[in-house]
Amino acid sequence: MAKMDFWYDFASTYSYLAAMRAEPLATAAGVTLRWRPFLLGPIFKSHGMDTSPFNIYPVKGRYSVRDLERLAERQGLPKFHLPVPFPANSLLASRTALALSNEARPEFSRAVYLAEFSEGRDISDRGTIGDLLARLGHDAEAVLAKTGEQTVKDKLRAETEEAGRQGIFGAPNFVAEDGEHFWGNDRLEQALDWATGRRST
Amino acid sequence: MAKMDFWYDFASTYSYLAAMRAEPLATAAGVTLRWRPFLLGPIFKSHGMDTSPFNIYPVKGRYSVRDLERLAERQGLPKFHLPVPFPANSLLASRTALALSNEARPEFSRAVYLAEFSEGRDISDRGTIGDLLARLGHDAEAVLAKTGEQTVKDKLRAETEEAGRQGIFGAPNFVAEDGEHFWGNDRLEQALDWATGRRST
Repeated sequence: MAKMDFWYDFASTYSYLAAMRAEPLATAAGVTLRWRPFLLGPIFKSHGMDTSPFNIYPVKGRYSVRDLERLAERQGLPKFHLPVPFPANSLLASRTALALSNEARPEFSRAVYLAEFSEGRDISDRGTIGDLLARLGHDAEAVLAKTGEQTVKDKLRAETEEAGRQGIFGAPNFVAEDGEHFWGNDRLEQALDWATGRRST
Repeated sequence: MAKMDFWYDFASTYSYLAAMRAEPLATAAGVTLRWRPFLLGPIFKSHGMDTSPFNIYPVKGRYSVRDLERLAERQGLPKFHLPVPFPANSLLASRTALALSNEARPEFSRAVYLAEFSEGRDISDRGTIGDLLARLGHDAEAVLAKTGEQTVKDKLRAETEEAGRQGIFGAPNFVAEDGEHFWGNDRLEQALDWATGRRST
């Protein structure tokens, strides 16, 4: 079965849209997704940006909110809300996702995204993350304790460094087994085509 | 019949892809496209950028070339080439497009884009533009002479200012009659849906 890496940042708006639709499309295409949360912040910094491009270029940021509202509606998602502040601090959510098993990570990630972009909840807050964990049947306190462990912190740092090494500069980013990159929610279908050898349409 | 503005810059790579596929899709949707060339340069400058974002962020620029190669192939276009230097100076091509009639503009625009992005020709060169005009059956000398007239120069300046006033920050950009904006080649289908009232799918 073909595999594909799905790189995402919990603060990333278009990663949200991709996360909410990736799994059924991948299953239909016969592709196994590997969910790889990472931090865009250090990568933006390495390109000389101290915040999201949507803040650096406000006219683009305003347009993107409208674009996201329309796309969320087309996907059948709840009304899109940009969290305040934007981008959210995604450190705790990312560590939590990595503290969970590979099997539990997608469902937790979708829950974080929905809380953030449809309910406007603060995903940097331990109460929010604990609540989401509990609702999904996890032992919230045990998982939150794990996010303070050095192995989990190191894992997130290593994943972020790996993303940078692979030339990832934004999220979501899909990487096929042969190393081909597809950037953006708009490229999900094309990435799945590539991963399964259907490279032209 | 629904109308839609198609704003494009001759130096813009993704405008090329949109220009090569927009007309048949618009016709099928029952939408009349109004082809509106403008200059992105002054708009980038107003946002503090002195060149294309693909040059400011080289890692994004390198990815975009690969993305364009793949998309050109999927569209059945010749192999994609980034012109040197990039972005090309699109002043002469834009003035020429505006000197032509509304009816002649789309065909001429597609010819410019193909020369630029598949043959690597210099679209700032009068010889190149004259050759393209002649091949399309225009009186090349007469049209080129028109590009030096103040009314044509003023028209391009006015169109570029209008684009800025409408909040356009990149190209291609599709604008529906109700003022709704859709940025990027990836949004062409959605823009046509919007223009014809099919706003969710």
